[in-house]
Amino acid sequence: MAETETTPARRSIGATRNPASEAAILAAAEAVLVENGIGGFSIEAVARRARAGKPTIYRWWPSQAALLLDVYHSRKRVSFVFPDKGNVRDDLRTYLSSLLVTWREGTSGAVFRSVLAKAQGEPDALAALCAYMAERRSESGGIVAKAQARGEVRPDVRPELITELLSSFAWGRLLTERLDVSDEEVDAVVDTVLAGILAKPAG
Amino acid sequence: MAETETTPARRSIGATRNPASEAAILAAAEAVLVENGIGGFSIEAVARRARAGKPTIYRWWPSQAALLLDVYHSRKRVSFVFPDKGNVRDDLRTYLSSLLVTWREGTSGAVFRSVLAKAQGEPDALAALCAYMAERRSESGGIVAKAQARGEVRPDVRPELITELLSSFAWGRLLTERLDVSDEEVDAVVDTVLAGILAKPAG
Repeated sequence: MAETETTPARRSIGATRNPASEAAILAAAEAVLVENGIGGFSIEAVARRARAGKPTIYRWWPSQAALLLDVYHSRKRVSFVFPDKGNVRDDLRTYLSSLLVTWREGTSGAVFRSVLAKAQGEPDALAALCAYMAERRSESGGIVAKAQARGEVRPDVRPELITELLSSFAWGRLLTERLDVSDEEVDAVVDTVLAGILAKPAG
Repeated sequence: MAETETTPARRSIGATRNPASEAAILAAAEAVLVENGIGGFSIEAVARRARAGKPTIYRWWPSQAALLLDVYHSRKRVSFVFPDKGNVRDDLRTYLSSLLVTWREGTSGAVFRSVLAKAQGEPDALAALCAYMAERRSESGGIVAKAQARGEVRPDVRPELITELLSSFAWGRLLTERLDVSDEEVDAVVDTVLAGILAKPAG
């Protein structure tokens, strides 16, 4: 897919980023989004705030969404824990609650919501979001794949589908501002995915 | 909650809608959204197209999102099947696949995406979406509640949380334009929720 070119984790082609300018632009983008909201976000405002040229920003990030996903990813890494505790229940609990907590606290929730909103009206934003999510699904699916390797999870299960179920639940909570999910509710979701809801196991 | 006033299913306070004008306005709103996209949607354009007055529209629908949710709900009823087949597996399969098919075909997916996008930047839209979703969750949770009454599903399960897991999965697919979910994938999601993914049942 050509869209992987826009993935925030990768350098843009033909443009070596200057780390100090990159950090300044990311910080400016975050500040502009938080202060102005989605409607008031523009590359022009980011450039002015970061004292950077618009062409530099466009060379490094092909779209507003690509820039915002880079802000999101760099901020998320601060609080998001990628779990590997050796058992699938703890790992999925940590995965889901860490996602909810990361979005609830700090600015990353607001940034990600703005990318999701933009992606509904702008093809560039949708392509950047889809490329980003494909990478995230493959990464988070690893939690379930490891559990399969340990014999905890049935081999016919598709790992990425399971973590997609959990992250989609978190998306729904983010988009309706209901991120204040209790530990009990996190456990209820994870236990549903692990053990199902049937009174008797399927025959 | 005061927001329930904006629920599409209910009449606005102090305003008896004229059915013919209401239908014309809903059709105009749908056409304007489909033709202009989210960015070009405005009450002014809807009023012009429906040959209705802007004050009439604002009297009947307090926000753009409330109007769009009414368009969505009226169109969705055409193809969305609320299942009651007497067993929870078939009912949840039908619920999830009907949601995906409804969004994939016709305009209701585009309309709902626009409401989700608007809700990320406009408090009125968020309130209308949340009120609408609270009603939908209570309705769809009935699928699981009935299965509990039949003894199919464990009594400690919270019905609304289960259908929220399925609808959130569908939201994620809608927002990333991956609605083309196979029957196999629908079954995999439903079977995960019903029977879990553990190799051995939890002890």
